[in-house]
Amino acid sequence: MTDHTLNKLVIIGVGLIGGSFALALRKAGMVKFIVGVGRNKENMQRALNLGVIDKIADDPASAMQDADFVMLSMPVGQTTHIMAKIAPHLESKTILTDVGSTKQNVIAAARSYLLADNLRNFVPGHPIAGAELSGVSAAQADLFSDKHLILTPLAETSAHAINQVVKCWQSCGAQISQMRADEHDKVLAATSHLPHILAFTLMNYLRSSSEKEPDNLLRFAGSGFRDFTRIASSSPEMWRDICLANREALLTQIDAYKNVLTSLQKDLANGDALALEKTFAEAREIRTNWLKDKT
Amino acid sequence: MTDHTLNKLVIIGVGLIGGSFALALRKAGMVKFIVGVGRNKENMQRALNLGVIDKIADDPASAMQDADFVMLSMPVGQTTHIMAKIAPHLESKTILTDVGSTKQNVIAAARSYLLADNLRNFVPGHPIAGAELSGVSAAQADLFSDKHLILTPLAETSAHAINQVVKCWQSCGAQISQMRADEHDKVLAATSHLPHILAFTLMNYLRSSSEKEPDNLLRFAGSGFRDFTRIASSSPEMWRDICLANREALLTQIDAYKNVLTSLQKDLANGDALALEKTFAEAREIRTNWLKDKT
Repeated sequence: MTDHTLNKLVIIGVGLIGGSFALALRKAGMVKFIVGVGRNKENMQRALNLGVIDKIADDPASAMQDADFVMLSMPVGQTTHIMAKIAPHLESKTILTDVGSTKQNVIAAARSYLLADNLRNFVPGHPIAGAELSGVSAAQADLFSDKHLILTPLAETSAHAINQVVKCWQSCGAQISQMRADEHDKVLAATSHLPHILAFTLMNYLRSSSEKEPDNLLRFAGSGFRDFTRIASSSPEMWRDICLANREALLTQIDAYKNVLTSLQKDLANGDALALEKTFAEAREIRTNWLKDKT
Repeated sequence: MTDHTLNKLVIIGVGLIGGSFALALRKAGMVKFIVGVGRNKENMQRALNLGVIDKIADDPASAMQDADFVMLSMPVGQTTHIMAKIAPHLESKTILTDVGSTKQNVIAAARSYLLADNLRNFVPGHPIAGAELSGVSAAQADLFSDKHLILTPLAETSAHAINQVVKCWQSCGAQISQMRADEHDKVLAATSHLPHILAFTLMNYLRSSSEKEPDNLLRFAGSGFRDFTRIASSSPEMWRDICLANREALLTQIDAYKNVLTSLQKDLANGDALALEKTFAEAREIRTNWLKDKT
């Protein structure tokens, strides 16, 4: 039996995701010592007090020293900055992974800053989990249980590195898939980034409409509206970063979505009852099938 | 004290809404005898067995005879047909109301078929309640409790008729507002019909994208996606009717929404981080305020 236990795990960004990863590995007995790196001193102290980490790192150099495994779990917009900062101190044995919601930009940053030895040990990842909540106080050991985890290894990523990252995520209870980074970014643009854009846009649209009209438009909005717009309460900073990181794929998705919307508008303008009913029935059917597949 | 108790209430369309209205009035002691009218014999028999109604009407003429109050709660697409059918039998004392999700088209149908005496007793209404469920089995006495109920009376609607309808909905626990029918249709187009269109369109867009790609796009869709698309599981027939009935207002809303979306696309294409973050932050803020106002 190969031992995948980590002697030293470094978590950069000990928030909801990084903190939950630490808690899950600790619970599974997969890690002996956890070092945390983070900007927010209060949050880092809380992580220490909660036992999520064993030590707050003093500097990048000492943090990276003898590390088996480094997890990048700060907001995806900081990736380039952090890659540049840790690259000089990364040891050749250290496995590096991340949890960014976009993958091509993270890989580009890695290619800009990491040495060939470190690139072989880099396994980009994305857990499909999370919430509107943030910070280490929201972390929980079972956050990734039965959730999807997508890995997008580089051509040069070693099987050994992938294997170690898979073992860690398996011990968190995640369901692991692999795909190309460009495919990942396209799939997520469609099923996550686009819906967020549509929900944010609806709120902004209604705000601008309300300004023109004295009566409060939203007064009569019901529960369907509440659920539809829930994702519009997500972090503006995080979504700014995700949108910019996945700009091309997202712009393509928005264009394509607008075309489908325009086609429905034509059916509506023509009063084509049959086409409208067919469109709505097909939409309901694909959602029903999706819900069935989920369970 | 004026007695608003109904001797004979007629419910046309004894489904979720009509059935819940009957149950609520019965519970409040506001009605002595309830007659049901409906196409689906099985559903009508169930309504009788459940005690939601006291009698299934044999024909429109006998149903309308001596009725104090007629509630139209069949799908809004059948409004014209039903108005034409009941108009010859409506007595001049009978109060008439409806629950259609669109109001201008219901009023147009009323103006086409009702005599002046009946028009004075017609009080168009719309309860902002309901669910993806349908049929009398889903009916419940407290469905309208603390929910909004919008009345859009005609210029000629009598105060007496409005008063009676208000008393009935108050006994259901509803919060009653009045507005013009065109205003109602515009407000609902923005906060209900538009989100439904956007959700239906997302499902259809992803279906058409999936066809082009072998991998299942939806496999990695998470809980945000599930909530965003919940309203895409709504009844295709009902939404076909609502869209057609509120066609002009809805087309205007879709156009305006597309403009806001295009403006966000421009910020994204320009990589305008500041504008994106501001947009998302404003969207979140208006939603937070809305949630606060609701509670």
